Amino acid sequence: MALLRLYDYAPSGNCLKVRILLAHLGVSYERIGVDIFAGDTLTDDYARKNPARRTPVLEVDGQYLPESSAILWYLGHGTAYLASSPLTQASILRWLLFERENVEQIAALRFRLLAGLLDADDETVPARRTACRYALEQLESHVSEHSFLADGAYTIADIANYAYVHLVPDVDIDLGEYPAVRSWLARIEEQPGFVNDLAPMPANARVGRGLSIYG
Amino acid sequence: MALLRLYDYAPSGNCLKVRILLAHLGVSYERIGVDIFAGDTLTDDYARKNPARRTPVLEVDGQYLPESSAILWYLGHGTAYLASSPLTQASILRWLLFERENVEQIAALRFRLLAGLLDADDETVPARRTACRYALEQLESHVSEHSFLADGAYTIADIANYAYVHLVPDVDIDLGEYPAVRSWLARIEEQPGFVNDLAPMPANARVGRGLSIYG
Repeated sequence: MALLRLYDYAPSGNCLKVRILLAHLGVSYERIGVDIFAGDTLTDDYARKNPARRTPVLEVDGQYLPESSAILWYLGHGTAYLASSPLTQASILRWLLFERENVEQIAALRFRLLAGLLDADDETVPARRTACRYALEQLESHVSEHSFLADGAYTIADIANYAYVHLVPDVDIDLGEYPAVRSWLARIEEQPGFVNDLAPMPANARVGRGLSIYG
Repeated sequence: MALLRLYDYAPSGNCLKVRILLAHLGVSYERIGVDIFAGDTLTDDYARKNPARRTPVLEVDGQYLPESSAILWYLGHGTAYLASSPLTQASILRWLLFERENVEQIAALRFRLLAGLLDADDETVPARRTACRYALEQLESHVSEHSFLADGAYTIADIANYAYVHLVPDVDIDLGEYPAVRSWLARIEEQPGFVNDLAPMPANARVGRGLSIYG
């Protein structure tokens, strides 16, 4: 395996995705803390690693790979967490895209609320929460009939979607309304080697008012 | 190759992506027209093909695969349009995710304007157009230094991003402001077998006021 260096923000769900897979795989890597609220992603040096100025970024033998799901794909290649058949890979990709488009709404609202960029009674919050519920409804329908997202096996598709779905209480949505999703989250947490080491948002998060990017 | 059936809406950029790759590959397939404005995606039968009720859907030996980029991945597997190395695949995936998150803003605004769901002078249009410009700026920066999006070769990442980027004039953005993007679009159109057979939005598109989904 190549030399791996993970540019990582401990309270970021996107970074958590990568740490979950690395824990499953038992791969050793160097972890570089990136303090997004201290401006670590706003430097020219960081923009060369990721023009979108987000975490995580995986450095592989000197090459920089941004985007959590792209990192999951690279690390999962050739393992049980990413199937090799074209049709199953396409199904996994479908759920990675679903996450980026729909579960991302949970990530975005959660970040804005926790970082104080948006007040809980802001007029835009109900519409944002409706978008979160759309993601949960689509998932509820699917995992009511399937143990995992892609072809019945636990894959990087589940890891990617787990990260922010398990955090919906932070946007004031009760997981009890989505029992199949809650059972699916529990099945993920029971996987061998699963570790959820998400750090709480730190005190300096509130300094971030005006910050338009997130980890 | 398996028996392929494409559920397709001719004016949809998402469907165009798939047709471009199929033209490159010279693969034969059955094309089933889906008239989204006539309610074809709102049936229970269509929801079984794609719970998100969008086009395109590829039927492969009786299995339904939604999401244009997931379809590109399936069809591109083992061809020059999708590399086999894990790191290059991850880089392609990064740009597919970029498309879903950022270029999607162009697709969404274009659809709302052309279908009459949003007036050109609606107060939300400037913010929506700013989101489109963010996508174009990120692309401009990248293709100023790279011929194509992933690792210097033409891949499904370029096809996926081409579809709605070449349509930015429909959201009143001048491609002349993004010269590197314009050159990159031209390089794509010069690829052997490239066909852009996007149909114009039909007269019945205006019937769609209230429709919240798009092809």
